[in-house]
Amino acid sequence: MQLVFSAADVAAIVQPLFSKGATLETIRDIASLGAAKTGDLSFLGNPKYKTEVASTAASVVLLPPDYAGEPAPGQQFLFVEKPSVALARVCARIEQLLWPKPVAGVHPTAVVASSARVASNATIGPFCVIEEGVVVGERTHVQAQVFIGRNATIGADCWLMPGVVVTSECVLRDRVRLHAGVVVGADGFGYEFVAGRHEKVPQVGNVVIENDVEIGANSTLDRARFSQTVVGEGTKIDNLVQIAHNVRIGRHCLICSQVGISGSTTVEDYVVLGGQAGLAGHITVGKGSKIDGQSGINSDLPPGSFMKGSTALPYNLEQRINVLRKRIPDLFKRVDALESGLADLKKPSAPSQS
Amino acid sequence: MQLVFSAADVAAIVQPLFSKGATLETIRDIASLGAAKTGDLSFLGNPKYKTEVASTAASVVLLPPDYAGEPAPGQQFLFVEKPSVALARVCARIEQLLWPKPVAGVHPTAVVASSARVASNATIGPFCVIEEGVVVGERTHVQAQVFIGRNATIGADCWLMPGVVVTSECVLRDRVRLHAGVVVGADGFGYEFVAGRHEKVPQVGNVVIENDVEIGANSTLDRARFSQTVVGEGTKIDNLVQIAHNVRIGRHCLICSQVGISGSTTVEDYVVLGGQAGLAGHITVGKGSKIDGQSGINSDLPPGSFMKGSTALPYNLEQRINVLRKRIPDLFKRVDALESGLADLKKPSAPSQS
Amino acid sequence: MQLVFSAADVAAIVQPLFSKGATLETIRDIASLGAAKTGDLSFLGNPKYKTEVASTAASVVLLPPDYAGEPAPGQQFLFVEKPSVALARVCARIEQLLWPKPVAGVHPTAVVASSARVASNATIGPFCVIEEGVVVGERTHVQAQVFIGRNATIGADCWLMPGVVVTSECVLRDRVRLHAGVVVGADGFGYEFVAGRHEKVPQVGNVVIENDVEIGANSTLDRARFSQTVVGEGTKIDNLVQIAHNVRIGRHCLICSQVGISGSTTVEDYVVLGGQAGLAGHITVGKGSKIDGQSGINSDLPPGSFMKGSTALPYNLEQRINVLRKRIPDLFKRVDALESGLADLKKPSAPSQS
Repeated sequence: MQLVFSAADVAAIVQPLFSKGATLETIRDIASLGAAKTGDLSFLGNPKYKTEVASTAASVVLLPPDYAGEPAPGQQFLFVEKPSVALARVCARIEQLLWPKPVAGVHPTAVVASSARVASNATIGPFCVIEEGVVVGERTHVQAQVFIGRNATIGADCWLMPGVVVTSECVLRDRVRLHAGVVVGADGFGYEFVAGRHEKVPQVGNVVIENDVEIGANSTLDRARFSQTVVGEGTKIDNLVQIAHNVRIGRHCLICSQVGISGSTTVEDYVVLGGQAGLAGHITVGKGSKIDGQSGINSDLPPGSFMKGSTALPYNLEQRINVLRKRIPDLFKRVDALESGLADLKKPSAPSQS
Repeated sequence: MQLVFSAADVAAIVQPLFSKGATLETIRDIASLGAAKTGDLSFLGNPKYKTEVASTAASVVLLPPDYAGEPAPGQQFLFVEKPSVALARVCARIEQLLWPKPVAGVHPTAVVASSARVASNATIGPFCVIEEGVVVGERTHVQAQVFIGRNATIGADCWLMPGVVVTSECVLRDRVRLHAGVVVGADGFGYEFVAGRHEKVPQVGNVVIENDVEIGANSTLDRARFSQTVVGEGTKIDNLVQIAHNVRIGRHCLICSQVGISGSTTVEDYVVLGGQAGLAGHITVGKGSKIDGQSGINSDLPPGSFMKGSTALPYNLEQRINVLRKRIPDLFKRVDALESGLADLKKPSAPSQS
Repeated sequence: MQLVFSAADVAAIVQPLFSKGATLETIRDIASLGAAKTGDLSFLGNPKYKTEVASTAASVVLLPPDYAGEPAPGQQFLFVEKPSVALARVCARIEQLLWPKPVAGVHPTAVVASSARVASNATIGPFCVIEEGVVVGERTHVQAQVFIGRNATIGADCWLMPGVVVTSECVLRDRVRLHAGVVVGADGFGYEFVAGRHEKVPQVGNVVIENDVEIGANSTLDRARFSQTVVGEGTKIDNLVQIAHNVRIGRHCLICSQVGISGSTTVEDYVVLGGQAGLAGHITVGKGSKIDGQSGINSDLPPGSFMKGSTALPYNLEQRINVLRKRIPDLFKRVDALESGLADLKKPSAPSQS
């Protein structure tokens, strides 16, 4: 990304309470205080970096109103209520430049079935396949090389990035973002073992993704055996995550990269799952629980649980055990010594040496 | 999915031994006994849910012949030998509606090399690329946006879903199903460290996938350094699984999501690998072994092994250790106390208090 | 792969110091000494397999000059300085047959924006989308169904395989190989929790991939929140790996399959990360460190660290603990016995039995 903002452009976006100093530099990038160079915008987002402001080379710095220092020559300080929020506003402006609003309409190369209903202000990009009975909502952007299967429904203001696959009968509500390579509605992993072979159990349910869900690149969500696999409103899912059939995920969860959730498990609202955590099937993780990275959960958890380890224990207990683990080799030696010591005491007293 | 079956349609599919009651409801969905509503089909698949039959709102219920209760008004019971098998038959019928038989032929947008041989009753969907020398067998469905590289061979009755990539020289036998985003035949991860750099070792083998294999979305299978990476007949692989170069997987294995199998490892017939398990390279996992989720296997396992943990131990031992782990902090205190106690005893006897 | 080399063709590639015996067989495959059949090429890459040379059925065998045995009738020995290097040369030749040099030019089905600059000797394959402002360097091969977003820059001699997605503003230097399904530049996983909802933090940085990097199938690399996510020169990344936003990976690292690296973490040069290892965010793994498979790293590591376990400990300590873990159930029993024994000793002496 190459920005070409003037300091005045930045000020127009962040609307500072007041400012100090001035710069004629074109702002071309954003950087942390320590890494910033001339022409960069930086910010004091965390008070612990306060001492770095005085030495930063950034041309424009976003600061809280109580910051007392003075800018260097050719440097401008913009004082705002919350520097991190102000920075987010600058980033949102940049994002519009990176991802300009697509032109509405169906690209001439796209293959759209005659019975599909695509909103007139939606965008269907090159090499997309939209099958029979599909609905694509208002202002939705189906970017490129996307596949949407028979009778799937995509809501308004969604964004399906290149290579996304949404299979037959699946439903996306509004403002859903699927990053490149996401697969919604692959078959659940269900077989019956009959006469020495795994016979397929047909997977005839679907996947429903509620409003404001975002799903990271190459994640996979399986359709239900029957009824629905559900991702609740506002939940955010990172890259390479696996959601099995009939899983029900609540609202406003955060599911980090490479998590795996096995079939028919329920994750209640506001749960946070750390990277590479694994959940067994047919369990419930209670509301607001936090699961540390790489943890393995094999049984129901009450609301507000905080777990770590594989198999997981309560976080504080697991951390204590982790500290003690290092001393296990020593513990074995201590028990050896205790056994020797006790044996010595038990021996019939040897004749006195003296 | 919206079904529109009458109760008579369901009966025609499951062919009940006998029935009780009657309903005029249109059957529109399938649900568990507890979740079912009017218009749903439900079933008693597991005796432990027997008590839920009396209160289910399902309009049609599949039951074993020895179930003694009576249907509610407007509810129909269909008695069948095995309700779960009967349900699977209904699901299979629904599946045909979800995934109707594709029309044979090559979509006008597909790019098919002149030397490729595509069976006349096969289907090649939009935006597929079929390179020189490829063979596509009878009734195989290459769905959309699929890539099949030079000289690859795809058998009969296969189904390659959107975005699948099968690279040059790879072989799929018959009735192989590859879900969206599967990559068959990426290069194995092989380098020689020469003069401070990793020099690529060319990967010139291929991948062979035997009959009746199914592979889940976004899984990856690497081509062999030389000779073959093999997946045996009837083996089922879930989503986001990694199969490295020169791995040999036997017949009728189940490999759950996010498993990783390192290079040159052999997995014998009927092995089950739980989700997120990892297998080191150059080892053999014996026939019929079961590996629990998140386990790590670093050495050969004899047939019938049942392992858990990272690094894995026999399942029962690992479970016992998991129970004892919680008491490790206490164990350290007990050893502290023992040391004090023993030291007290060893002390030269203090003058008697009495 | 079906080779059709004569023994003379092989000799022309490996240029032997001298040879013994002769064969008229056509060389059709490569196999290990034990697995080789008539018509195969084999090699003695590791002295421990020396005894297998006498009984191998391979028609041509690559051997070190000091190997003393004689070929069987119809078998040819080719003596070379380093058999594994000689074999790699044969494989490199085979690789050229598998992956013939693509014809330069833009496939008529590709959608290339008018402002994109594609080198005249580059290849853009079918169904690729090249957006505005993209640069594609000399001899680069954009194979099929690839998406390259606005203003992305791809260097010379790169190879982007089917289904690859490189999003807006990302940069690949020269000789970068991306296997099928790789996603470069998905959004980082960043949200601010505001009023009970996760509000998106725009991700406006990019990804920069330096010279000679290779990335395996379906791996994902997220764009930076701001500034850059970087993969250093010569680093090799396996399949299904997750690289989060603002990660900085050094030069000549090896990152095995299914590794996950969390946001803002730095991996210095020559680090090796075993399969399924996970790195927490905002940490630094020092130069030349080795992390065993499935390990979890939560804090900074000095250069040259060798770690194992989750949470990881120094490799040798973790291995010792792994050995002792099996004896933990016994340890609890020993401590029980010690407590009983000590209690007995502390008891006021019972009246003598004798």
